[in-house]
Amino acid sequence: MTRRLRYGMVGGGEGAFIGAVHRHAMALDHRYAFTAGALSSTPERAVRSAEALGLLSDRGYETWEAMLEGELQRPAGERIDLVVIVTPNHVHYPVAKAFAEAGIHVVSDKPLVHTGAQAAELERIVRERGIVFAVTYNYTGYPLVKEMRRLVREGRIGAVRKVVVGYHQGWLATKLEDQGAKQAEWRTDPARSGAAGAMGDIGSHAENLVSTVTGLELEALCADLTTFVPGRRLDDDGNLLLRFEGGAKGVMMASQVEIGHENDLVLQVYGETGSLRWHQENPNELWVAALDEPVALLRRANPYLGPEAAAVTRIPSGHPEGYLEAFANVYGEIAAAIHRHGDGADIGGDYPTVSDGARGVRFIETTLASAASDAKWTPFPSAGH
Amino acid sequence: MTRRLRYGMVGGGEGAFIGAVHRHAMALDHRYAFTAGALSSTPERAVRSAEALGLLSDRGYETWEAMLEGELQRPAGERIDLVVIVTPNHVHYPVAKAFAEAGIHVVSDKPLVHTGAQAAELERIVRERGIVFAVTYNYTGYPLVKEMRRLVREGRIGAVRKVVVGYHQGWLATKLEDQGAKQAEWRTDPARSGAAGAMGDIGSHAENLVSTVTGLELEALCADLTTFVPGRRLDDDGNLLLRFEGGAKGVMMASQVEIGHENDLVLQVYGETGSLRWHQENPNELWVAALDEPVALLRRANPYLGPEAAAVTRIPSGHPEGYLEAFANVYGEIAAAIHRHGDGADIGGDYPTVSDGARGVRFIETTLASAASDAKWTPFPSAGH
Amino acid sequence: MTRRLRYGMVGGGEGAFIGAVHRHAMALDHRYAFTAGALSSTPERAVRSAEALGLLSDRGYETWEAMLEGELQRPAGERIDLVVIVTPNHVHYPVAKAFAEAGIHVVSDKPLVHTGAQAAELERIVRERGIVFAVTYNYTGYPLVKEMRRLVREGRIGAVRKVVVGYHQGWLATKLEDQGAKQAEWRTDPARSGAAGAMGDIGSHAENLVSTVTGLELEALCADLTTFVPGRRLDDDGNLLLRFEGGAKGVMMASQVEIGHENDLVLQVYGETGSLRWHQENPNELWVAALDEPVALLRRANPYLGPEAAAVTRIPSGHPEGYLEAFANVYGEIAAAIHRHGDGADIGGDYPTVSDGARGVRFIETTLASAASDAKWTPFPSAGH
Amino acid sequence: MTRRLRYGMVGGGEGAFIGAVHRHAMALDHRYAFTAGALSSTPERAVRSAEALGLLSDRGYETWEAMLEGELQRPAGERIDLVVIVTPNHVHYPVAKAFAEAGIHVVSDKPLVHTGAQAAELERIVRERGIVFAVTYNYTGYPLVKEMRRLVREGRIGAVRKVVVGYHQGWLATKLEDQGAKQAEWRTDPARSGAAGAMGDIGSHAENLVSTVTGLELEALCADLTTFVPGRRLDDDGNLLLRFEGGAKGVMMASQVEIGHENDLVLQVYGETGSLRWHQENPNELWVAALDEPVALLRRANPYLGPEAAAVTRIPSGHPEGYLEAFANVYGEIAAAIHRHGDGADIGGDYPTVSDGARGVRFIETTLASAASDAKWTPFPSAGH
Repeated sequence: MTRRLRYGMVGGGEGAFIGAVHRHAMALDHRYAFTAGALSSTPERAVRSAEALGLLSDRGYETWEAMLEGELQRPAGERIDLVVIVTPNHVHYPVAKAFAEAGIHVVSDKPLVHTGAQAAELERIVRERGIVFAVTYNYTGYPLVKEMRRLVREGRIGAVRKVVVGYHQGWLATKLEDQGAKQAEWRTDPARSGAAGAMGDIGSHAENLVSTVTGLELEALCADLTTFVPGRRLDDDGNLLLRFEGGAKGVMMASQVEIGHENDLVLQVYGETGSLRWHQENPNELWVAALDEPVALLRRANPYLGPEAAAVTRIPSGHPEGYLEAFANVYGEIAAAIHRHGDGADIGGDYPTVSDGARGVRFIETTLASAASDAKWTPFPSAGH
Repeated sequence: MTRRLRYGMVGGGEGAFIGAVHRHAMALDHRYAFTAGALSSTPERAVRSAEALGLLSDRGYETWEAMLEGELQRPAGERIDLVVIVTPNHVHYPVAKAFAEAGIHVVSDKPLVHTGAQAAELERIVRERGIVFAVTYNYTGYPLVKEMRRLVREGRIGAVRKVVVGYHQGWLATKLEDQGAKQAEWRTDPARSGAAGAMGDIGSHAENLVSTVTGLELEALCADLTTFVPGRRLDDDGNLLLRFEGGAKGVMMASQVEIGHENDLVLQVYGETGSLRWHQENPNELWVAALDEPVALLRRANPYLGPEAAAVTRIPSGHPEGYLEAFANVYGEIAAAIHRHGDGADIGGDYPTVSDGARGVRFIETTLASAASDAKWTPFPSAGH
Repeated sequence: MTRRLRYGMVGGGEGAFIGAVHRHAMALDHRYAFTAGALSSTPERAVRSAEALGLLSDRGYETWEAMLEGELQRPAGERIDLVVIVTPNHVHYPVAKAFAEAGIHVVSDKPLVHTGAQAAELERIVRERGIVFAVTYNYTGYPLVKEMRRLVREGRIGAVRKVVVGYHQGWLATKLEDQGAKQAEWRTDPARSGAAGAMGDIGSHAENLVSTVTGLELEALCADLTTFVPGRRLDDDGNLLLRFEGGAKGVMMASQVEIGHENDLVLQVYGETGSLRWHQENPNELWVAALDEPVALLRRANPYLGPEAAAVTRIPSGHPEGYLEAFANVYGEIAAAIHRHGDGADIGGDYPTVSDGARGVRFIETTLASAASDAKWTPFPSAGH
Repeated sequence: MTRRLRYGMVGGGEGAFIGAVHRHAMALDHRYAFTAGALSSTPERAVRSAEALGLLSDRGYETWEAMLEGELQRPAGERIDLVVIVTPNHVHYPVAKAFAEAGIHVVSDKPLVHTGAQAAELERIVRERGIVFAVTYNYTGYPLVKEMRRLVREGRIGAVRKVVVGYHQGWLATKLEDQGAKQAEWRTDPARSGAAGAMGDIGSHAENLVSTVTGLELEALCADLTTFVPGRRLDDDGNLLLRFEGGAKGVMMASQVEIGHENDLVLQVYGETGSLRWHQENPNELWVAALDEPVALLRRANPYLGPEAAAVTRIPSGHPEGYLEAFANVYGEIAAAIHRHGDGADIGGDYPTVSDGARGVRFIETTLASAASDAKWTPFPSAGH
């Protein structure tokens, strides 16, 4: 029985959505203890939220700065092991930077930060301090996403020719941000969300999923972004043509105005000898096609799957696992890495790192540049550029 | 922030399946603390399991009798609030009886006990002691099952004419119990599983689902049970015709030898003006048909659903919830009832009670009687008979 | 280029449904010429229908008796080769008997006749006259139904343990027969439809499909028939438990009051090592499961299918074929048999014969007997009894 | 009963695919008589094919030129009414031109011709001669495609914002053209297929479907075409971003190397208040979403559909119609137009005309131009340019 890791959360108080998801996911496998929090940007609300969520009164801080200071004053055996940042995007950078510099492990929601320069700075700090820094691209935690990755990497569909990824939502098809919907408000506000709307919020997930599963590296892209809802300040729909190093091609669609879709993330990978299809809303199935054979329908928790998928399966086949379980899988890997850090061992693992987050930020920047350009192809900058 | 309830678990140690599911589900919403356990029928293994799962050393008991005695000696503020029984079926009765008589709340897995007489005895004790006694018919915890119930009860499909329920599994299509599979061993052993095989294990879920959703009361049934796998001692397949009070009809299929099915529980309810269909393996969707209208596809976490479904929804639509979440929903209602008990309030609630469990036992007994009878219809005994 | 066969149709005029389906299906492959007709029971309407459908004026008869007489007076090279009977059920017998006795090939819609005695009489005549006599159990014409049959017969799923067949419709959920719907009127009228309602109309298809695919022979059955719509005179819903020779079991559901279903015929066959599932409303797919393997999704017109399915495939995979094509496949086999008859060769073939029709009549009779009986099992009479 | 139209076919003999489809489709509704043919580019094979298909010996021509001459010499009452061109693409133009100039109605397969100039010339001739000239964009014949068009045009989803159309095939994932597959050979040969591969063969269908359903007019496009199979001379995969007049956006994918797909044509249309989705491989269903409502699943042949869909429905709901029926629907409209021509009435109707074909040719040319350009957007030329 390994020790439960103590975490402090920034954001995630009253009216928030994703903070509760993180807490549920962290609770699932008994690896974490919710120990401290600066749960709102309004001090009063932060304290009230901490109380409501059962934090001890001296661990419910008014601000994240206070939390950092307060925790650092505690003895190592009581101090939080990690900070979990679930604020609107614009707060990610200062919080991540401060805690990372203090040597506290960091888990940040995506997109990591607003600019490539910020991301590079975080990468530098993480490298220097040797901490665990994870970005919650949670969809990579699904067992069958791990199976897709295995099948691609083991050559089961041959060299990849083409990738089609779609992230289809419809919840922003009307001007919800004017109707008091907090989630819509900050996501459509450039000051809090960053320069990208749908592309930052969900396009970044699509990019990460493609990259994680295929290992392909983007060479160039061609983006057409649109703001369909009148008066909205950020894109709510984006369509991209993709070119990968080595000749593979791709199509990405990310939209928040496609009525009828809820959280419809679909990945299709086509290779020289086969293809794969996976759909987040029905995550326990994976379609595998091979030349001249019937399509095979792989399901979670069966013996024909690889060890990566098996390792993150809690319950038998036919008992559906979902979003929280996938999220918890990412947190499981993070916990293992933090424990290895404590043991002085390698902190690498099967979780999205600060470098994945930095690549995501470059993706958003390149997409915006392409959208503003008359040139068909905008090159994708490699890491460190 | 309400206090976390302390629970002691009987069963659920090394090699068990459902115990871990209960623990995951109880962890999800932070309502329970895993405090004590008699986790195996082998004392040594019980203690080893307790240690592995992080129980304090004086709360990892060798036997359930020791746990009962040990906990009763503790002050009320430390003692477990409830016992969770996740053993093979034959152990349910003595444990449930002993803890209930001691005034400790009980959660028991299904089927409740082996005989109707045992069930009636438990009902009597529960009535006398006024405790919360829940049976984990977990499928009733799905939001869209609650929505089905609401739609039926509110008359949205008119008077119910017919119910078709199928619980299709294939994992026992071969003689797995001879290959060291612990789950298969006890489920096919009359001494531990009871006189019914598939009908007890999954038919009982089907019965409960029909009863919960429709409120119909069985009048008579006609059962054909089969043991397809040579050498097996209990039924592995059962098909039933059902007659309900008031004239509705039904078909139930419960099988563990239908290769290709995993945990395929499907409920269809046909009324005079519409119909409903729900499928456990894709639990976030509900088909609703009405006369002369297109079929409507309802999905979890949308504003058009009723309050019961909304109340047990954690995350937005399109982010799939699954089996654990549904299980946790049942535990959420149980926790609320126990807290109400503490407050001296009504302990009724939206969870399956000892009476549901007793009805399930009568269902199994009647099914076995019908299977042995040449008469077409075997009457279904009402409660108290 | 083989000669087109000349057919005369009885029934199928104004207001009819299935007659036009037969004509479409016969037209599809250019094997038949629509030459004569007695298209309605009302002489005036019969003649008017013939004219509207382009028959020559001397081939549009007022009655089927006139058609039989008129055609027999023509020289062999002009006379109709076959009669196609698409009337309400009660007319099948006299027409089939008269034409068969005259040595004219017969195609009759199902159910063949009202009584087992009538069916046995037709079998006798057919045997004596050596003609082709087909019953249009059209669902057997689907390529993937033929593939199912091949897979079962070749042992790909091992010995069959269980069959589940459902024929789900909802169009008679209200009393449509009182609203001027001709199809509903005669189907719910015992004088025209026979003693069975849904069981005769669609249960008979289900029986034939099971028999064709599996080759299993019924040993006994247990039926529960219901008339849900008040005032209706025949069953509109039936549920059966089935026992086959050799120990296989089955469940059949046939309903015309299940709102939301249109023509939802589903067959599932479970064997010792695998299973199959096919769905008439999506007829170009076949699910094949095998122990411990992913489910395989077979699709029409692919090289991995057997020769029977390939032989009745007109267009490439992905270009959906449907109901008419399947119907036409049955007619293709009938045409081939009639041509073989002309050549003095064996008239057997892959089409449903008078014996299939007779077995269907016995099935209906046995089902009705079971429904009226208190005994659980009613034996199924073998042919000739 | 209207007269059957006499047709002569060019192409469609031995080894051909689409010719037989046309003949099946024309046979279905008894509106056409197969009267003459020049069925192959090899005279000997042409005659042999004519004989095999049952044409009279003097109507099986060696060449299309001979057919044109032979038919013109016949009296009007015997002469073919229309020519049906089902050759490889490069033959479309000369045949269509010659018959059109002779005043014979023309049905041509798509893509119409190789160049915009040829298409404009055909448009001119058709205008002058006043004949019916149809291009078999057969997918527009599906009832639910007509329903989509109706719903869009009637404003049921509000102004269209975005269209996503995919035409996914996998049959050319390997170099089938080197293995004696006739269909693959000519489709990958620039001399016969034209300058486009997948884009001409299936992209043209996708363009037509979008245009037919939405009525949107292309303003500009951005294409990325790829030839994935080494040694192939034409594109086998293409992905496009689309901009329509008025601000709508689109994505088109057309591929013949996506293993696992057969003939997977999918159209999604997103409007301000709702959306639609239709899938050719399951053509009897249509998904309709509206803001804040459950998705509705519309099915063919139900009373809630509009008159256009109802008019082209042969058989009741739940009895699947498919590809041939849709093809036959297009031919039904063509037949009606030809009859109207005979009556001196308006020949317009619900079928794809020479102008649709010409727009399709411009689409292919513009796509190729874009693929060769470094500019992001290539303007789409309007008709007459």
